[in-house]
Amino acid sequence: MIKAAIIGYGNIGRYTLEALSEAKDFELVGVVSAHADASKNPELKNFQIVKKIADLKTKPDVAILCTPSRDVPKTAQECLKNGINTADSFDIHTNIADVRKDLDKAAKEAGKVSILSAGWDPGSDSVVRALMEAAAPKGITYTNFGPGMSMGHSVAVKSIKGVKKALSMTIPLGTSVHRRMVYVEIEDGHSFEEVAKKIKADEYFAHDETHVMKVDDVDALKDMGHGVNMARKGISGKTHNQLFEFNMKINNPALTGQLLVSVARAAMKQKPGCYTMIEIPMIDMLYGDKEDLVRRLV
Amino acid sequence: MIKAAIIGYGNIGRYTLEALSEAKDFELVGVVSAHADASKNPELKNFQIVKKIADLKTKPDVAILCTPSRDVPKTAQECLKNGINTADSFDIHTNIADVRKDLDKAAKEAGKVSILSAGWDPGSDSVVRALMEAAAPKGITYTNFGPGMSMGHSVAVKSIKGVKKALSMTIPLGTSVHRRMVYVEIEDGHSFEEVAKKIKADEYFAHDETHVMKVDDVDALKDMGHGVNMARKGISGKTHNQLFEFNMKINNPALTGQLLVSVARAAMKQKPGCYTMIEIPMIDMLYGDKEDLVRRLV
Repeated sequence: MIKAAIIGYGNIGRYTLEALSEAKDFELVGVVSAHADASKNPELKNFQIVKKIADLKTKPDVAILCTPSRDVPKTAQECLKNGINTADSFDIHTNIADVRKDLDKAAKEAGKVSILSAGWDPGSDSVVRALMEAAAPKGITYTNFGPGMSMGHSVAVKSIKGVKKALSMTIPLGTSVHRRMVYVEIEDGHSFEEVAKKIKADEYFAHDETHVMKVDDVDALKDMGHGVNMARKGISGKTHNQLFEFNMKINNPALTGQLLVSVARAAMKQKPGCYTMIEIPMIDMLYGDKEDLVRRLV
Repeated sequence: MIKAAIIGYGNIGRYTLEALSEAKDFELVGVVSAHADASKNPELKNFQIVKKIADLKTKPDVAILCTPSRDVPKTAQECLKNGINTADSFDIHTNIADVRKDLDKAAKEAGKVSILSAGWDPGSDSVVRALMEAAAPKGITYTNFGPGMSMGHSVAVKSIKGVKKALSMTIPLGTSVHRRMVYVEIEDGHSFEEVAKKIKADEYFAHDETHVMKVDDVDALKDMGHGVNMARKGISGKTHNQLFEFNMKINNPALTGQLLVSVARAAMKQKPGCYTMIEIPMIDMLYGDKEDLVRRLV
C-alpha cells in the first residue's frame, strides 16, 4: 500500500480523499490543514488531522498538494526535505518551467520524486498536446476551455471593490478565443456600472470579450462542471490536413483529484527528480500489473 | 544527428522516408529492401539500398521496421543483436505482450532499446486509452475505427478463391461495433454469390455486419484516409459521468510513418529494454530542448 497524505482541504482536497478511498493500492495516513476538523468534516473522522506534515504519526510515501497554486512550491520543497514524494496541480502556466527546475534540484538532493502541474490543464491536456505534436509535428493546436467556471478569473473579480460575490464563466468561441461571462453580487452603496467598468479594464479581462451581469445570488449559478476541446490540424511527414481532436465534459475538482492520485502512484516509480505529466510514462499512473495493462490497453 | 535505417519499403516505408526528411535531428543511412531500387524509386537515389542491414556502410543508431507485422519480431531481434535500436508498428494485438517479453530480453542483452507497436492503434490510441483510465479508472472505453480501409481484412478477402482484387472498408457503428463494406473484383469463371458467401463465413467477417459488392475497378475506390473515435464515460474518484472523447481523421500510412520517426527519437532516450508507447514519456518523442517543450506544451 502506498501511504498518502493530503495537504490542503478545500474542493480539490475533498475530491482527492474520494479518489484515494477508491484506489486499491493507497491508504490515507492523514490530512494537513489549518481549517479542517472532524466535526465539520465527518468524512475525516477516522483520519489524523494536523497543522504540519511533520506531525503525522505515520510518515507518508507521498503528499498530495491540494493548496492554492501559489503555496505549492514552498510546500513541495518542505515535503521533499522531509523525505516525502509530492504530487501537485500547480497551474500558473508561466512559472511551471522555473518551479520545475527548483523542485528538480530539491528532489534530487532528497532522493525523492516530485510530480508538478498534474491536473487537467496543465496536466492531461498537456499530454494530449504532446501526443498530437508527435503525430503531426507541424501545425497549430487550439485549446478551447469551457463552458465552465474559471477559479482565477472569479477570484480576480472578487478582489474588486464593491463586489460581494462573483462567478466568471469561460465560454469557448473556438481557435483558443474565449468569452468571459461574469456574474456579480454588488455590495450595498456601490454602483454596478462602475464595478462592471473596472472588471472589463482588469488585466484578466481586458483582452477578452467580457459581459458583466448583476445577479441576486451567485451561489445559485455555480456548478463544478467544466470542459475542453483541443483541436490540431497539422502535417505528418509531408502529408497535410491530419486532423486530431480531444473533448472532455467533466466535474473539475473530481478530475483533478483523480489525476493527482494517479500521478502520486507514478511518483513511486520514477527516478529522483521533478517531472510534469508529459515526462512520465502513462502506464505508471495506472493500478495493476504492467503486463496485464499492456495486454488490455496497447 | 540520429542515424536511421528503414527496413521494408512499402507504403509505410515511403511515408517514413518523408517523415525522416522533415525531421531536423535525423539522417537516413540507407534502406533495407529486397524490392526497392533507385530506378523505380527515384526518391532513394541518394541513399544506399541493401538486402541485409549488416551491409549498410554506416551503422544506424536505430532501425525503423516497415515490414509486414509478422516479420517484425525476427527483424527486430536481428537488429538488436547487431547493436541497433528498433522502432516498429507491430499490430497483431493478441501477440504484443509476448513479443514485448522476447524483445525486452534481447534488448537488455544487447544494451539497446526496442519500441514496439508504435503506430496509431496500437500506438497513439493506446496512449489515449491509458490517459483516459488515469483520469477515470472505472468505466468503459469504446474504440470506433473508420471509415477507412482495413489492410488485414482486405488481405483476408484477397486470399479467397475467385477474388482478383479486394478492398474491405471499416465503418464505425459506435460502441466498438463495426460494419464491413467489402468491394471485390471477381476472377473470370467464378460466381460472385459463392465468393460473397465465403467472405461472410470467413472468421474475419463472421462476427460483423458484412456487405459484399462486386465492382469493376477496386483500385479506383482506394484512398488512404482513415479515422478513429474513442469515447470513455467513467468515474473519477466517486464522481460519475466524466466524459472523454478523442477523434482523428488522418492519412493512415503518413501518420504511422510519422509516429515511427517520433518513437525512433524516443528510443535514443530510454534505458535498455522493450517498450510500448504507454511505457515512454511523451516528451521523449518530440524534437527540441526539454525545457522549451515544457514551457510550450505543459
